[in-house]
Amino acid sequence: MKSQGQKGSRLIKAILKGEIRAAAKLITALENETPWAYQVYRSLFNQQKTGLVVGITGAPGSGKSTLIEKMIGNYRQQGRKVGVLAVDPSSPFSGGAILGDRVRMQRYANDPGVFIRSMATRGQTGGLSIAAGSAIRVMKALGMEVVIVETVGVGQDEVDIIKVADVSVVLLAPGQGDDIQSIKAGVMEIADIFAINKSDLPGADQVAVELAEINEVQDRRPVIKTSAILNKGIDLLIASIQNDAQRPKKDELWRLQEEFKQILRYKLNKKTEQWLSRKEIEKEVHRQLASKIDPFTLSEQVMEHLFAAQWVVEEEG
Amino acid sequence: MKSQGQKGSRLIKAILKGEIRAAAKLITALENETPWAYQVYRSLFNQQKTGLVVGITGAPGSGKSTLIEKMIGNYRQQGRKVGVLAVDPSSPFSGGAILGDRVRMQRYANDPGVFIRSMATRGQTGGLSIAAGSAIRVMKALGMEVVIVETVGVGQDEVDIIKVADVSVVLLAPGQGDDIQSIKAGVMEIADIFAINKSDLPGADQVAVELAEINEVQDRRPVIKTSAILNKGIDLLIASIQNDAQRPKKDELWRLQEEFKQILRYKLNKKTEQWLSRKEIEKEVHRQLASKIDPFTLSEQVMEHLFAAQWVVEEEG
Repeated sequence: MKSQGQKGSRLIKAILKGEIRAAAKLITALENETPWAYQVYRSLFNQQKTGLVVGITGAPGSGKSTLIEKMIGNYRQQGRKVGVLAVDPSSPFSGGAILGDRVRMQRYANDPGVFIRSMATRGQTGGLSIAAGSAIRVMKALGMEVVIVETVGVGQDEVDIIKVADVSVVLLAPGQGDDIQSIKAGVMEIADIFAINKSDLPGADQVAVELAEINEVQDRRPVIKTSAILNKGIDLLIASIQNDAQRPKKDELWRLQEEFKQILRYKLNKKTEQWLSRKEIEKEVHRQLASKIDPFTLSEQVMEHLFAAQWVVEEEG
Repeated sequence: MKSQGQKGSRLIKAILKGEIRAAAKLITALENETPWAYQVYRSLFNQQKTGLVVGITGAPGSGKSTLIEKMIGNYRQQGRKVGVLAVDPSSPFSGGAILGDRVRMQRYANDPGVFIRSMATRGQTGGLSIAAGSAIRVMKALGMEVVIVETVGVGQDEVDIIKVADVSVVLLAPGQGDDIQSIKAGVMEIADIFAINKSDLPGADQVAVELAEINEVQDRRPVIKTSAILNKGIDLLIASIQNDAQRPKKDELWRLQEEFKQILRYKLNKKTEQWLSRKEIEKEVHRQLASKIDPFTLSEQVMEHLFAAQWVVEEEG
């Protein structure tokens, strides 16, 4: 019988050698919050692995998956290894979409230079961003030179994920809702590059005009016209990403701080939910509210007892 | 000089008399988390006001705003007062969309039986759902017999808002992404009624077929075909909502418990963020991470000190 420690160090070795199955195994364990996975994951922290993280954010129907498929093809021609993390549950990468898309993605199933992984929405706020952050680190350790993260760009979790990308591409397309403003403001702000996909369709010019107005106010970011389905503009987009990646980037310590905050928020939320669902607490809350105390007052009373905020800073000896 | 208490009780009286401006004032104060607003709000809790809360959830482009406009018209013909709360920042109700829509909504600007209010996304998770919950209560106190809540249905905040609606309508339409699965699973589950809007367009039948598959598995919920722009099916939808409202509904105490949980989560998150942004805490986190402790381990250490979970249940005398 192997100890968990031995199993762990074998897994790390396998991942560092580029074995996709080992990486998939660790990511699943991390997703399930398996205790041994954290031990393994911890030892990956000191592995200095580079790898460009590219976020591709766009509403359903903007053509994200077709674009990413073409990007994979382009990177593979350059001989670069590509990881894809799809956090959009409706993505064909995660098996959520129509059959045609799923078959299309099968093309890379036997390519050891491509690792595609999907991630479902978690119950608790914060869970998804932590799992995604871990998966990105594992993909880098695996030797993926580019890690593409596909998101719809809604919810705090997704914003947290995109925040740590080296380069963020926001994908727009004609025919999405009434206008460009259906894209959340927060997502617009973090874009390093805009891509107008389906640029062969009527309405693409209108998107470009509306985008120019927004782009004018802030610093001007590159706008690339693509047509993923016609394989047009992909090389330009990839060149623009490469160019943006040359700018001074977030440093590793900043990224660790972000990860720490996300983990802490998640743990706090989880503990709060556990506490709230305890029988005696539920009963007491019920009793108090039934006796006509309002929820605001009750929450204030509870807060006084719940949050200690007594993290003692230990002095070094 | 009037005291805050006097000001508050005047505001309550005005709201209970149906004065829209007073309601708007209170909602703004609640949104801004002004302390006196909570005092006023607390006294509204014991006002037993009925009013049907109807959630309308759909992706951008599904035609929510046009549908709601037609619903308002229908309810007004019945002589019922209608409040609309738009929590979708891209909604024309919140001024986010193209000029044509905004002009359209002006129609109800001088109708004292219609109160339209929009709400922007808040920085902190949980903030939006609390503000929306408060606004719904104020609208009921104002005498609004139907309160329509318009959401895009993404993010925890929005799910929390829809959860407390009496009747939830999920709006689908042809041409939204590749298929029906672009609607989040969680939103599908809470639907009491499905409406297929733009039913005059090709592709509506395909949506109906895909929906039938999902609907088959769970309990069969009504599916209403509408075309908001042609004013078709609105009466059917409203009849279906009325019918659904006859079923036994969530009781007030359950709703208060939900509100309490939402407020508590929000307060905890807010306090955590304040704590995390304290200079000495930031410095210590930075120092620890720089000394190669990983974020998981650090968060565990912090958690031990942060979360007390010592809510003492007081015995009644």
